[in-house]
Amino acid sequence: MENFRFNAYTEMLFGRGQIEKLSEVINRHGRNVLLVYGGGSIKKNGIYDRIQELLKESNILELAGVEPNPRIETVRKGAEICKENNVDVVLAVGGGSAIDCAKVIAAAHYYQGDPWDLVTDPSKIGKVLPIVTVLTLAATGSEMNKNAVISKMDTNEKLGTASPNMIPQTSILDPEYLYTLPAIQTAAGTADIMSHVFEQYFNKTKGTFVQDKFAEGLLETCIKYCPIALEEPRNYEARANLMWASSMALNGLCGSGKQGAWTCHPIEHELSAFYDITHGVGLAILTPSWMRYILNENTVDKFVDYAVNVWHLPVAEDKYETANKGIDATEEFFKECGIPMTLTELGIDTANFEQMAKAAVLHGALQYAYEPLDEEAVRKILEMCL
Amino acid sequence: MENFRFNAYTEMLFGRGQIEKLSEVINRHGRNVLLVYGGGSIKKNGIYDRIQELLKESNILELAGVEPNPRIETVRKGAEICKENNVDVVLAVGGGSAIDCAKVIAAAHYYQGDPWDLVTDPSKIGKVLPIVTVLTLAATGSEMNKNAVISKMDTNEKLGTASPNMIPQTSILDPEYLYTLPAIQTAAGTADIMSHVFEQYFNKTKGTFVQDKFAEGLLETCIKYCPIALEEPRNYEARANLMWASSMALNGLCGSGKQGAWTCHPIEHELSAFYDITHGVGLAILTPSWMRYILNENTVDKFVDYAVNVWHLPVAEDKYETANKGIDATEEFFKECGIPMTLTELGIDTANFEQMAKAAVLHGALQYAYEPLDEEAVRKILEMCL
Repeated sequence: MENFRFNAYTEMLFGRGQIEKLSEVINRHGRNVLLVYGGGSIKKNGIYDRIQELLKESNILELAGVEPNPRIETVRKGAEICKENNVDVVLAVGGGSAIDCAKVIAAAHYYQGDPWDLVTDPSKIGKVLPIVTVLTLAATGSEMNKNAVISKMDTNEKLGTASPNMIPQTSILDPEYLYTLPAIQTAAGTADIMSHVFEQYFNKTKGTFVQDKFAEGLLETCIKYCPIALEEPRNYEARANLMWASSMALNGLCGSGKQGAWTCHPIEHELSAFYDITHGVGLAILTPSWMRYILNENTVDKFVDYAVNVWHLPVAEDKYETANKGIDATEEFFKECGIPMTLTELGIDTANFEQMAKAAVLHGALQYAYEPLDEEAVRKILEMCL
Repeated sequence: MENFRFNAYTEMLFGRGQIEKLSEVINRHGRNVLLVYGGGSIKKNGIYDRIQELLKESNILELAGVEPNPRIETVRKGAEICKENNVDVVLAVGGGSAIDCAKVIAAAHYYQGDPWDLVTDPSKIGKVLPIVTVLTLAATGSEMNKNAVISKMDTNEKLGTASPNMIPQTSILDPEYLYTLPAIQTAAGTADIMSHVFEQYFNKTKGTFVQDKFAEGLLETCIKYCPIALEEPRNYEARANLMWASSMALNGLCGSGKQGAWTCHPIEHELSAFYDITHGVGLAILTPSWMRYILNENTVDKFVDYAVNVWHLPVAEDKYETANKGIDATEEFFKECGIPMTLTELGIDTANFEQMAKAAVLHGALQYAYEPLDEEAVRKILEMCL
C-alpha cells in the first residue's frame, strides 16, 4: 500500500425526503444561489418546483441546459452569472453532468482567466464557491469527490480536472429520484459505477486488501441491483444500494494507497469527444475488450480474483479459463442490462480511431496504466469493440 | 435501508513518515497545544521526541498517564489545563484511550459544568476544540469518528458519548508505529475492530447490501492480517491493512442506514467498569457466547451469510450447522491470536454478574438490539463465558 491522504468530507444526506433539509443547508452559505441543471427532467418529476418552494427566501439564479457531456461554453456562462450576481453557493441538481459543470463554475468564480485553463491545468484551481448537490442519477460519484470532466467540442477535447476544493459541501441523495429514470440511464449509470471500480481494482499496487474488498463489494452491489432496478424501477432497496454505491465507488475508498493511471475512461473520453455518446455506454463497450486485451501473465491472477470473488465462479484448472469466464460474465451482464455493446451499433466506424488513440495516449497517461497502452494498443482495443 | 446522514470528515494522512506533516497540521489551529497520551510507550519508541522536535515552535502543554480505560478525573485535569492556558488544539497520541480522553477534554473546554455531564448527556456537547490524532494502535476507530468512552471507577460506570463535533480534524496513521506493539494488544485491537463490525453487521434493518459487503470485507481483512502481524510484527502490509480497517470499521460505512442498539459493547463496558480489563479481550470473550445465545430462526440466515461470505465455509444442508461452524471459527480465531477466551482466565467469577447485567440493560438500550436482551439473558451470556 502506498501513502495517501483521504478526505471525503461531503455531508451526505441520504434517503426519502432529505430534500426537506435543503433550505437549512443552503442558508449556511448565503442567500444568492446559482441553480445548475440539465434538461427538463427535474421539471417533469417535480424536483424543480419543490426546490423553488423550499428556497423561496433565497435569490435563485439559473443555469439550465447543461449538456450530458457538459461544455466549456456552459461553464463560462455560469461563471459570468456568479460574478455578476455575487453568488454565494452553487446548487447542482442532476447527475454528474450538472455537478461537474457546477464544480468548474464554482472554481471559475475566483479565477481571472478563461475557465478552460482550470480544466487543462488543475493546479490553477484555488478557492472555490461552496457546492451543494441534489443527485438524480447514480453514476459518476461526482456528488462526493473532487473530479469534473468538461468538453470542448470545437477541438474534440473532453478532459478531467480535479481539486479537493471542488468536493461538494453537502449532497442530498433520495433514491426515489431514480424511479423515473429511462432504463438506459439506469444501465449506463451502473456501467459507469462499475468502470470506476475496475479502474481502481485492476491496479499494480500490492497489499491494498481493504480497498479491494470494498471494490468487490461495490461490484457485487451493481450486479445484484441493476437488474432489479430495471425490472422494478420503483424498488427502493435496489435504487438505494445503487445510489450509495455510486458515491462510494469514487470517493477514495477504492483507490487510496494505489498508484497508476486509468484506462477505459481516457479512451471513452475520446469517444465522447468525437461522437458525444453516453459516457456509461462507451465504458461498457470498451470494458470487456480492454480486459481481454490486457489479460496476460502479469494480470491473470487478479482476473481470477475478480471472477471468483465478484462473480462467484468456480476455479477452473486453467486460470485463463477462470479469468475469461469472469470477463465473459461482465460482457453478458452489460448486454442483459440492455446496453448496446458494439461501437457499430452506435454508428461509429474506424474513421477516427487513429486520432482518438493518439489523443487518449496524450491525455490519459496510459503508459502508467495497469497494463501500459500505446497508440497501437488503444487502436486495437477500439477495433475489438466494432 | 433507513435514512441517514454520513459525514466522516476527518483528513486521514496515512502511511510511513506522515508525521512530518504534523506541524503544518497543528499550525492551522493555533500555537497552544495540549498533548494527551497514555503510558511511556511513545517515549520508548521515539514518537514523543519526534513530536517535540516537529512542534518546537508550538507551546506544548502535556497531559500524560491517560488510563487504558480513561477516567473522568483525567478528563477534568485536561479540561482545566485547556482553560488555564487558552489551548487552541488538542493533540492525542496513542490508541482509543488517549483519543477518547482528548475528545471529551476538547468538548469540556467550552462547557461550564462538570465534564461528566457530557458523558451522561451527549446533547450537552456544543462547540469543541479542534482535535488532531497520531494513532499508535489499530482498534477503536476513534481517530475517525464521533465516539468517546469514559469511566468513572467510584461508581463502576463506563459510558459512551458522542457528538459530530468531536470528530478529529486530522488523523495521522503510520502503520510502522504498530511494529512494537505487544502481541496481546495487536490481538485485542483486532477483536475490537471485528466487534465494531459485528455490532453493525448483525442488525435487523434489511436491504443494506453495500454496508454489509463493506463489513464482510473488513472482517476478512482482520482474519487475514492479524495472524500475519502476530507472526511478523514488522510486516507493513499487515499493519497497514489492520490500521486502515480500524478507521473504516466505525466511521459510518458499516452502520449507516441501520437502526438498533449494540450488544457486546455495553456488556463489555460493565466488565471493564468492574474489573478494568482490556476492552478487546472482553469483547473477544463475549462474542462467541453472545452469537450462540442469539442464534435462532430470526438470526440464522445472517449467521449463514457470515459463515459463507466471511469464513468461506461450505453451505451445509442444515443451516444451523453452517451458522455454528462460523461461530466456532470466530472463537477458534481469537484463541489462535492468543486471547484468553474465558472470564475465569481473567479471574472473574459470578460475584457481580447480577449487578453487571442490570447495568448493561440500563445503559445499553439492549431492548433495541439485534436480538433484544433482558437482564437474565445478559447474565446467561456472562455465565457461558466462564
